[in-house]
This record gives sequence, structure tokens and C-alpha cells, in this order.
Amino acid sequence: MSGLLRIQLRPQASGLLRASESGRASFAHVAKAVASIGELSGARMCNIAKKNLGPRRRFDYFSRGIATKKEVTLTSEMYPETKRNPAFKKITTDDIDFFKKALGDKQVITDVEELEKYNVDWMAKYRGQSRVALRPKTVQEVSKVVKYCNENMIAIVPQGGNTGLVGGSVPVFDEVVISVANMNKVRSFDETSGILKLDAGVIMEDADNFLAKKGHIFPLDLGAKGSCFVGGNVATNAGGVRLLRYGSLHGSVLGLEAVLPDGTIYDSMHSLRKDNTGYDLKQLFIGSEGTLGIITGISILCPGRPKFSNVAFLGLDSYEKVQQTFKAARSELCEVLSAFEFMDRRSEVFSSRLLGRAHPLAGEDVDVDSLKGNYAASVPEYPFYVLIEVAGSSKEHDDEKLESFLENVMESGEVSDGTVSQDEAQMAELWEWRESISMAAKIDGGVYKYDVSLPQSKIYDLVNTVREHLTEKDLLSATDKSKPIVDVIGYGHIGDGNLHLNVCVREYSKVVEEALEPYVYEQVQKYHGSISAEHGLGFQKKHAIQYTKNPVELHLIRDMKKHFDPKGIMNPYKYV
Amino acid sequence: MSGLLRIQLRPQASGLLRASESGRASFAHVAKAVASIGELSGARMCNIAKKNLGPRRRFDYFSRGIATKKEVTLTSEMYPETKRNPAFKKITTDDIDFFKKALGDKQVITDVEELEKYNVDWMAKYRGQSRVALRPKTVQEVSKVVKYCNENMIAIVPQGGNTGLVGGSVPVFDEVVISVANMNKVRSFDETSGILKLDAGVIMEDADNFLAKKGHIFPLDLGAKGSCFVGGNVATNAGGVRLLRYGSLHGSVLGLEAVLPDGTIYDSMHSLRKDNTGYDLKQLFIGSEGTLGIITGISILCPGRPKFSNVAFLGLDSYEKVQQTFKAARSELCEVLSAFEFMDRRSEVFSSRLLGRAHPLAGEDVDVDSLKGNYAASVPEYPFYVLIEVAGSSKEHDDEKLESFLENVMESGEVSDGTVSQDEAQMAELWEWRESISMAAKIDGGVYKYDVSLPQSKIYDLVNTVREHLTEKDLLSATDKSKPIVDVIGYGHIGDGNLHLNVCVREYSKVVEEALEPYVYEQVQKYHGSISAEHGLGFQKKHAIQYTKNPVELHLIRDMKKHFDPKGIMNPYKYV
Repeated sequence: MSGLLRIQLRPQASGLLRASESGRASFAHVAKAVASIGELSGARMCNIAKKNLGPRRRFDYFSRGIATKKEVTLTSEMYPETKRNPAFKKITTDDIDFFKKALGDKQVITDVEELEKYNVDWMAKYRGQSRVALRPKTVQEVSKVVKYCNENMIAIVPQGGNTGLVGGSVPVFDEVVISVANMNKVRSFDETSGILKLDAGVIMEDADNFLAKKGHIFPLDLGAKGSCFVGGNVATNAGGVRLLRYGSLHGSVLGLEAVLPDGTIYDSMHSLRKDNTGYDLKQLFIGSEGTLGIITGISILCPGRPKFSNVAFLGLDSYEKVQQTFKAARSELCEVLSAFEFMDRRSEVFSSRLLGRAHPLAGEDVDVDSLKGNYAASVPEYPFYVLIEVAGSSKEHDDEKLESFLENVMESGEVSDGTVSQDEAQMAELWEWRESISMAAKIDGGVYKYDVSLPQSKIYDLVNTVREHLTEKDLLSATDKSKPIVDVIGYGHIGDGNLHLNVCVREYSKVVEEALEPYVYEQVQKYHGSISAEHGLGFQKKHAIQYTKNPVELHLIRDMKKHFDPKGIMNPYKYV
Repeated sequence: MSGLLRIQLRPQASGLLRASESGRASFAHVAKAVASIGELSGARMCNIAKKNLGPRRRFDYFSRGIATKKEVTLTSEMYPETKRNPAFKKITTDDIDFFKKALGDKQVITDVEELEKYNVDWMAKYRGQSRVALRPKTVQEVSKVVKYCNENMIAIVPQGGNTGLVGGSVPVFDEVVISVANMNKVRSFDETSGILKLDAGVIMEDADNFLAKKGHIFPLDLGAKGSCFVGGNVATNAGGVRLLRYGSLHGSVLGLEAVLPDGTIYDSMHSLRKDNTGYDLKQLFIGSEGTLGIITGISILCPGRPKFSNVAFLGLDSYEKVQQTFKAARSELCEVLSAFEFMDRRSEVFSSRLLGRAHPLAGEDVDVDSLKGNYAASVPEYPFYVLIEVAGSSKEHDDEKLESFLENVMESGEVSDGTVSQDEAQMAELWEWRESISMAAKIDGGVYKYDVSLPQSKIYDLVNTVREHLTEKDLLSATDKSKPIVDVIGYGHIGDGNLHLNVCVREYSKVVEEALEPYVYEQVQKYHGSISAEHGLGFQKKHAIQYTKNPVELHLIRDMKKHFDPKGIMNPYKYV
């Protein structure tokens, strides 16, 4: 075990970690508490701010440009080229009456204030104008209202936890919102097979907490776990940090229940690991973003929960070394490797500003008090950082593997510095330096998020290329506040070839958008990458699909949409 | 390490294992050699017979009822209720001329003798009457002939390695066979991501051998690996023994190339682990059994190859203990568990007759010479056997985990006896006692194979129920040769809920078929199981799909077939 401590060159970093009482598992509870008192927009995913920032800093942070929902421009004004489809009926009092009769008065939301959270997305980037949100409690109720909408040519937006990043879960115009929030029960769990059946409106973290008691794990993990719904996870084919270990939802979702655009209930809630009887049509719904129907239930295979886990946090001198370290980790850590995340230094600087504390690899000579709040100064000069998680059934074996791996990569010079967590709290703190980036990136006002898949060797080239491109256009400056862009940062799931490219801005603007698009997409297309690795298409990327899919694929996708939803009422203006 | 040997209570079993020079990896080479000299029908998958049986026994074995292809009744005679669709054109010399021009003379097979292997399935159960088999070399050639067939209303059977078990890959009447055997190249391999792109006609074992040199593994393994094609694996959504570890093809296939029924080339050969841009339409082809088009290429994610593996072979007193042992294995072996197979004693008796050697758990008092060929007598009286494979990155850790697990299950009384392999050859020999069952089951003449998914607790009930049912009908006797059925045996992948129920017969007959169907399917339906876990529907189970899929699912599946193939030329008379 002594070897494990050997690379901990930073005693005060270790002390820093120990000072925290938080466990990673407790993040989202904090987030939910914040959300429930409705203090601020977008706060449901802000797991860290509440805990680490005092009231002054929290005020500071949100006053520096995170818009409240009320300030969000209407999508129809921001994108005037998108026109309302006049074929869709406008809601009348008769329609409202029908909905109230079908669902009960309380489940039909028409109050303008209350509609806010159904109309505005988490990014505070899109605002719809829906006049009614429905909250059915059963699949039969969903079926009843969808059938009515279909017969009356009323457009629908299915909505889960509303934590999407591409404007897919909020209306563009006056579509009716159908939320599955009231369908939030675990239906059954088979302890032998690990198959969990649950309603679409169960919060991912609640599902995982339920499974933890049974010794199992939800095969998916992401920053929004405290708010996102499992139905939305399936509808968007969510990825996240556990994909490396447990694979995609196309493999782990065993069945689902959905209401089709004509109101038909598609009950395919199988719990069979193997079933080769007919086309696997449920696959079409995984990643369909609400355009083929409303997912109301899922059946999902949940692996045994690893008994032990550990986290190493490393500093590296180049992107080449990040790749070499990944190869070494896959080979040496093999079956116990459960996450391999990379972050560039710029990402860590943003995180340090949000987290308000010194970096875990800060040098011994860094005096925290003397930083006077400038925590960015504590981030060492390594251009790249890597977070590695191992998880398995024997702490001794896992630690031995990790130790031996770290010795090898330190000796070979692939890794320059690092620290390893000594307990759950330290693991959680190290994870924060990865998970907080998404929120930290908009600390100066806003962020344009690109989520792309690329061949591993090309991943960081894209970040450099885009930064150079924006610098050439004279749009970027870290200090000059007259420039719209503060910085371009890159981080992500290197094992999945998945880069999160964030363009951090002082405010959202057309000038920046035009400089970014289609430029970013063209770069991705060059390497046959995906313009949306895990975020989906939604409203934001509807027009960019052709950079990843060829004309035959596009034709078949659009043909499928027409076939399932000939009237086009399901989540219009989006996806394809 | 001493603990590992502790459970080896059978020194002569160990000696027996060591006596063999075979390694598991070499099985299929033997099989291929047999196939290449064309000695016998169905021999391509008969990995064991050639090696272990002397000429006399081999002759014996095949003379006792394994039909040669020439003796196989025409499917149209065996199932007269299936009528040829008169809308399909009968092939003319003009058509043959077109094919020859498109593909070259040599790739258009019309010789009656040569057509045999395209018309008859591996089970020697179905015989089509195709007059022409095509062997295109490129996707463009496939496209050209499919387009022609579509325009001329000529029915097609796509064919891979022709190792299917439900008559899906051979013609029923005079459909044109399009074989992908000539498309057999590895296209590319990315060592960083582990993504392999290859033609549909590559033999699975060749792919795995290629990957072994790169430190990777094909995420699929099954008995027919030496003959089956990767394109067929995807078309039938093949499962096998590695599914427990690496998940289903719906998760690991990242892209594919297929020729649609109208001749369109659907190029979706992506190599992205994450891509959320549009419906994942490739999923429809996985398990479509050639009814939506012809798969010509696949892109598949191949995990790192475990560096070490080991096998334990155990005897258990009851099915309840099999389940308990599985739960313990999943919990204790967790990330290193790579296979958990169970077999009933009756299965082992059949294997002993085929393998012609004493059972690995045979008692110390068994004198092999005194058996006089009656190897069945060497199979101990445990009603169940379990084979467990562990694979990981550290032999020491894996052995420790296995040792500790075995100590626990022996001490708790879940396992009564067992042996652990000491080297590769022993691993291979132990695997033979599982893998030979499929072939051994037809040693007395033939076998009706059911491949179902059930809740784990119900799996063995089905075997008992079916055996009782057939006994009541007075169709079963181990000794009375006037009864058609010899025995009913059960084995399979318990971790996947997948039972192989084999009804071993002296000959195929309508009486047995009528006693079995729909009886077996009705039993499966009772527990919401699948009537085809991994074998697919093909010709054999086309009429049974409604026992697993409900009317809405069935409607959508049939609707999809019509949508993609309105003329119905792709693999007619099968699937749905």
C-alpha cells in the first residue's frame, strides 16, 4: 500500500481533500434541495455551488451572467427563420376541458408562472410559449391525451427532467408539454437477474440509490443524475462516465413501454437478456428524443455494484501522453477500469473559480491563504489532467493493480504528477474537478457546448483548431471584456472518443454562433466524427445532422419519422 | 495456490485431462479440415468427433441416424402447407446470363451437386430447391444483383456460414441464394479504440485470431466459430458464451453496411462509440435474419483480450444450488466472471458418448478400461454440472478470487465436487463437456432444439415439464427403440436466462413435433419468456412469434418488413 502513497507528492492537497466531508453520493441531494426551493435557474444541476461557495460568492457567480429563466429570449425571436407550422391547432378552452376531464384539474398546468419551468430549458437558452403542460399519472392517461392531440392535430413536447443541452425537451412555439414527472415508481426488481423495471419519471439517482441497497448499480452515470429522468435518459440515449465500463443503453435496455403518436400503447416491457423474435424495435426509441412517441416505462439490466472503488488524479505534459496513459490503463487495469476522463488545464482553471479552492495537484509552495480567492493560480502548469476510476470486487487487488499501473506510467514518464484518493470523501472531491467543468464553463455568462465523437488521436486537435479560428476572428480574449469569448476548453471521455468542447462566452451572440457554425461541424465531418456524441440533436443541432449522416442514412431516418408520425405532432421543429 | 488444487478430488480426472494435447483454440481448425475434405454433412461444427473417436466409432456414430445432405427431405414436401408465392419469377437463362455478366461466370453456381451446400442446412433438416447461388465479391456487385432481383420479382436468400439452427439461411423453394463467402477481408482495425471493420463473410474465428495478435478479443464466442460468418452473427444477433461478459451485439456493433431490398447500398460503417444523431437504424438489421437486406460489412467494438483465464467444473445436487452458485459467482467473481454455463446430468451422458472418454468428475473408483466404451457410466450422479470461466489481467488475482469463491461454495455446501484446470489444454477439455452437447444430442438420430429465455428460477422446470409431458404421451424411452424419443436434456447460459432444451430423437417425426408444439411455446409464454433466445425465427419458428410478442409488437414488426421490403423478396416464407 505504501506505493499508493508514493505518488502523493502534495501533502497539503491530501489534507485539503480530507478537509471535505462530502461524499460523491451526496452531490445530487444538495442539488435537489436547491432546486426544491426554486432559488435560481439551472440550479438543479449545480451540485457544487451550494456546498462550496458562501452566499457572497454564490451571488457573485450568478450575478455574473447566468440568466434567470425570465430573461431568456423566446426561441421564436432568437431564431425567426423557424416558423410555426400553421397546420397545428391552437389550444382552446375546449381542449383544456378535455385534458382536465382526462387527467384531473390539478394535472393540467395553465398558470403562466408555473408554466415557466416547462417552457425554459436548463441552459436558459431556449424559451417556448406553451400554454398548457399535462402531468398524466398512468400510461393509459398518456394514451388518452396523445390520441386526442393526434385526432385534433395538436403538437406535443414530451418532457422528462428537462436537463437536456440541445433544447429538445421544451416547446419552440405553443406545443402542449406532456411531462412524465407523475410517473415515478419502481415497478419491479429481480435480484437474481438484476433487471429493473420502472416508470419513465423516476430520477436516475433515486433509481441508483434503490439499486445500491440491492447490491446493484444503474448502468449510467452523469452530472445531471439528481434531476434527470430515466425515461429521458433512454429517449436521449444518454452516455456519461460509466459507458466505458457498462456499454451503451442499446445493450442494457431490455424493454420499454411507450405511447405512439396515435395514442397506441406499445408495451414491450420485456425482461429477457436474450430474445431473438423479430426486429428489435425498442432500439428505435433509444435516442429518438421524443419524436416517435412518449416513453413511459423502461426495463433495464443493472450490473452488480462494485464493492470498492478508487480514483487517481494525474497531471500530464501532452495530449500524446494522455493517449499513451489510456492505452496503458486499458491494458493494465483492464476489467477494473471504470472511468478515464481527461481535462485540459483551461477546464481546471474554470473549475477552480467555481469550486473556490486550491487544485488537488497544487504545488507545495502554494499558500492557500495568499491566493486571496484567485484559485486559478493554484492550478499547476500541466496542460492536461486525467481522472482514472477503478472499481471491483477486491480492494486489495484493485489497489495493487492501480499501484502497479501508476508506478509504470510514472516511471515511463507518461505521467508527471498525481494523487490517489484515500477515502470516499477524497474520491468525491477529485470527481468534482471533472464534474464541475460543465457548470463552471458558463461562469462568465454563457457557454456554447459541442459534444462530438472523433478518432482519439484527433480529439484535442479540434480544441486547438477552434481556439485558433476564434482568435483569428478577434473574438477571444481572457481579459478584454469587449470580446465575446473568454476561452475555449476541452474535456471528456477519452475512452469513448468523446470530446466536450466548450466555448465560454460573456454572453450569447449571433456573431459567435456564426463563427462557430458550421465551422466546428465541418472539422468534425473531416474526420468522420459525430456532431453529437451524447447530447442529441434537439432544436440546436437539427440542421447539422448531415455532417455525420450521409444522404441514404438521412433519407431512411426521415422516412422512419414520417412512417411513425405521419402528422408530425411529436416534438416538431427538432431532430430531423 | 494450494487451495486451487484442494477441490481436485479426482487425480485420474486430472491425469485424463493432461493426456490430451488439444487446446480449445484448435477445435475449429480440426473442424475446418474435416469440412474441407467434405467427408460428411454437418461436420463443420463437429469439432470433437474427428479427434476423439476412432474410425469405427465415427462410422458408427454417423450411421446411427445423422442423415447425409442427400437424404434430407425437401422442405416443401415436409411442410406442404407452405406454398410457393406465385408472384415470384422463376429463374430463366436470361437471368443467369445477367448474373454471369454482373459477377463473372465462376461466381454463379448452377451445378446441381455444387448447389447442395447452398440448399441444405447444417442441421440436415431443411432442403431448398434453388437453381442458382451467387457469390458476389463487392458490395457494388451485391447491389447490382439485388436491384435486378427486385425489379424482376426474384426472391432472394442471403447466406453466410449456413450454420443457423432454424432453417433461416437456406431456400424453401427456388429462391436465389446470395452468399457473402467471397467478401472475407478485414477492412481496418484501430488499435487505440479496438474498433474492427470487416466484410460480412469473414469467419468469426479468423476475426478472433486476427484480434488475438493485437491483444483484443471478438466480443462473441459460440460453437460454430470455425464456420459462421460475422455478417451472419450480426444478422441473427448471435449470443453465445461471452454475452455474460461483453453484452449483446446491440451494444457492440457500431456500424454496418447492407444492401437494401431495392439494391440501395446503406453505408453506415461508423466507428463511433457514441453517436446520437438520428434513429439508430442499424439496430433493425441486428437480428433481422436477412429479411431487410443483405449485411455486407460490420464495424464492431472489440474489448481488450484478457491475459489469463481459468475454468472450474463443478458437480451440484440441485437446480436451486445452481442458482445459488450463480449468485455467489456474480458477487464474488464480479468483473472477472466470463462464463457461467450449466448442464444437467443427462446432457453429460450424451457428451460422454460422443467424446468417448471418462467424465472429468468421474469417481476415483472408476476404472476407465473396465468401462468398455460405456463412458456414460463414468458420469457421476450429480443432477447438475456447472462450468465457470474467469478471465482477467492478473493470473494471481484471478486465481485468488476463484480459489476463495470455490472455498466458500464448497464450505456452504452449494457445490459438492469440482475440478479446476491447470493449463490451456485442460481448460479446452473441460469446455468440451459443455460445447459438445449440441452435437452429442443428435447421436441417436436427430434432435429438436428449443432455445428459450425464461426467468432464471423457472428454467429447469421447463425441462422437467416437457419430459413428463412426453413420457405421459408414451413417446419417450431410453431403451425401447420403438419410441421416437431417447431423452430430454437441458443446458445453457444461466446468467442470460437462456435454456437450450434438446429433445433427442431416434428420428424426426410429425408425432413428436405435434407433441412438442405448441406445448413448449405455451409453457414459455406462461412465464413471459422468449421462444427464441438466440437461434432466431427462421423457417422453423416463424409461426411461434406470437408466444413472445404481443399483437401491437407483432403489428409493428410486420409493418416494418412491409415498409422496407414491399415486394417481400428478401428471405420469404420466414421470420414474420
